Amino acid sequence: MPIIVHKYGGTSVGTPEKIKNVARKVKKVHDRGNEVVVIVSAMGHTTDELIDLMDKITDNPSPREYDMLVSTGEQVSAALLAMALQEIGCPAVSLTGGQAGVKTEDIYKKARIKDIHLDRMKKELKQGNVVVITGFQGIDSKGDIITIGRGGSDTSAVAIAAALAADVCDIYTDVDGVYTTDPRIVKNARKIENISYEEMLELASLGAQVLHPRSVECASFYDIVIHLRSSTKDITGTYIKSVAQIAREASKMEKKEPVRGIALDENIAKVGILKVPDKPGIAAHIFGALAAESINVDMIVQSIHSAGAMADMAFTVNRTDMKKAVQVTEKLKKKLAAVSVIWDPDVCKVSIVGKGMVSQPGTAAKMFDALSKAKINIQMISTSEIRVSCVVRKEQGKKAVQILHKVFGLEKVR
Amino acid sequence: MPIIVHKYGGTSVGTPEKIKNVARKVKKVHDRGNEVVVIVSAMGHTTDELIDLMDKITDNPSPREYDMLVSTGEQVSAALLAMALQEIGCPAVSLTGGQAGVKTEDIYKKARIKDIHLDRMKKELKQGNVVVITGFQGIDSKGDIITIGRGGSDTSAVAIAAALAADVCDIYTDVDGVYTTDPRIVKNARKIENISYEEMLELASLGAQVLHPRSVECASFYDIVIHLRSSTKDITGTYIKSVAQIAREASKMEKKEPVRGIALDENIAKVGILKVPDKPGIAAHIFGALAAESINVDMIVQSIHSAGAMADMAFTVNRTDMKKAVQVTEKLKKKLAAVSVIWDPDVCKVSIVGKGMVSQPGTAAKMFDALSKAKINIQMISTSEIRVSCVVRKEQGKKAVQILHKVFGLEKVR
Repeated sequence: MPIIVHKYGGTSVGTPEKIKNVARKVKKVHDRGNEVVVIVSAMGHTTDELIDLMDKITDNPSPREYDMLVSTGEQVSAALLAMALQEIGCPAVSLTGGQAGVKTEDIYKKARIKDIHLDRMKKELKQGNVVVITGFQGIDSKGDIITIGRGGSDTSAVAIAAALAADVCDIYTDVDGVYTTDPRIVKNARKIENISYEEMLELASLGAQVLHPRSVECASFYDIVIHLRSSTKDITGTYIKSVAQIAREASKMEKKEPVRGIALDENIAKVGILKVPDKPGIAAHIFGALAAESINVDMIVQSIHSAGAMADMAFTVNRTDMKKAVQVTEKLKKKLAAVSVIWDPDVCKVSIVGKGMVSQPGTAAKMFDALSKAKINIQMISTSEIRVSCVVRKEQGKKAVQILHKVFGLEKVR
Repeated sequence: MPIIVHKYGGTSVGTPEKIKNVARKVKKVHDRGNEVVVIVSAMGHTTDELIDLMDKITDNPSPREYDMLVSTGEQVSAALLAMALQEIGCPAVSLTGGQAGVKTEDIYKKARIKDIHLDRMKKELKQGNVVVITGFQGIDSKGDIITIGRGGSDTSAVAIAAALAADVCDIYTDVDGVYTTDPRIVKNARKIENISYEEMLELASLGAQVLHPRSVECASFYDIVIHLRSSTKDITGTYIKSVAQIAREASKMEKKEPVRGIALDENIAKVGILKVPDKPGIAAHIFGALAAESINVDMIVQSIHSAGAMADMAFTVNRTDMKKAVQVTEKLKKKLAAVSVIWDPDVCKVSIVGKGMVSQPGTAAKMFDALSKAKINIQMISTSEIRVSCVVRKEQGKKAVQILHKVFGLEKVR
């Protein structure tokens, strides 16, 4: 019997009415003779409400108690969905991560899933139950409740699909797929039918917030096809799969589409430390200090300063981390005998992503040329095998996306 | 090292501010070198809010999913209290019922506690942690979350105190003890310092809603002293203990106070089925049918009808069950060839309670006489070894309590 794994996010189960809708969809799939496992997130704003309560008690909650607190959100939605299924005559049972056998590392708030013991899940499936599982959580070796960090429910779903050897993991969300770029910015942005794990990883990391990078990584590791689709419209979304599988299905893809999508990340800020006397270990010093404060650094550009043996170091961080990053950098200024620290929250990052770039030289140059013609100044550049990102002034970000979408012809399938 | 077990109810942990207050109280006890275990209920209206959500999905939730849902309420308050303790420098850890080793029967919604495995609790206490445990829940043999029914958190606390061999279980609540009667009805009602399990059981069953009968029963079984006290005022409340212990402490008690307290239950209704041809098995028939509909019947009075081989059967039920009880009884009327079914929601039950009654004949007569002199008509009577209850018209209930409080001299300690 085929095993179907569905995942519904917080918006899709945000109200009792929406939960009933989900139940009706799940029942249809179950009625067709499938074994069905559903992973759910917490309802809409539940997690935020729990954190509001917490903030009134402490600024510095212990990670263990944090997990104990927030994991209740998924438990509520899982129980309610199981009830909604039973109400329409579909046998169902809800399981916490622990009950479902999701074993994690002994690290609160951001454990990785180590193993999934399927006994209970299989027993419930065998009895004909739809199994509803709380996303985002498992238990550690002590039996403590552990959440698995950002993007957790998507990752739970993919890991459970992998453990059950399901062919596909359907992730239902409030968008109907992955687009060539944000349709709010470019009207004729096109839904992508198939995209490789690697390209999706880049797009997800770059601000296309439909799917957490970690879940994509997990799917690529176990070769689980993710079908990202709308929870309200019954239409095909985007399949995220291996290059090999895409190639098998449509061998022309790689040649024809060097650029698959364009992403805009407006949530960044630029910080720079200027005229640092250039000696070995400076970068390690700066980024070590930032890491010690848990500040994630994204792009890094080091340039030799024209005045001689001095370097300028510029980097981008999440905008909410800018203040802290500036403080850390200011402290280092004297120690490193640097001249000044600068910062700028009014920047954004525009990226083009596509596996085909590797074999199509000139793609980056085409991007730079297009931006230059539009009088958009590029402040920082970083590249990978399948991605080129440029930091530009924030107010020019949307325009840059529109221009690039056109230049790379993304509005039409080729 | 003495082990102290505290229980805080939903009102006492109803807001983040109140949780912080509880944390400060608990820390003081911990600072004095005690091992401390705290059992908590769900915050204020959390459980009601969860049930509101549920009601929007189903009228008939499966008991398993009900437990899965409502048990999250205690998990939230336990995590928040542990955080509040840590915030003021008191090491603490929260445990779910399952993590705390509370094993229940495999019955959802109303299991009894079977056993408590102390390993984890003892380990945490040894490490110097205050252990905060979710009341009202445990796990069954399958690892499913099970709630233990009405009065659950009080019972959890008493059972855990028993397992830990604590001397006293402090139950903090929004009243400061057990009174001779409701102070809102009788102004000079007096707080009782010591009361026996049996008397407390009767008072609790009769509407003195400070403590659930089940927790008292559990305490009597393991001889755990309950100290019922105010969560806001630092004063002695009421000790609930065995007769033997009370007698050791003050041997005069039993002789001097035949009546210890007076209870008023306004939540009842009377139902009667009249002129039932009297033959064996009628009572079993009627009360079997009511039990099948989960209607709890309290007082039962059967009287031979003056007209001959016929009986009148009257009983009281919880007022919310009256309609259903009348329906059940109406259905039986034809079958049993009874003449009519009557009902009356405007009644109440006044009871006097005291162990000393057994050895003081005339206590019941004194009650009937006092009510009669006040022109309060008694509709039904039921008695036990340590209790006399009368059903009277609802609007006369408070007056009856005031008169009896005076007649039995409860305003002064003797």
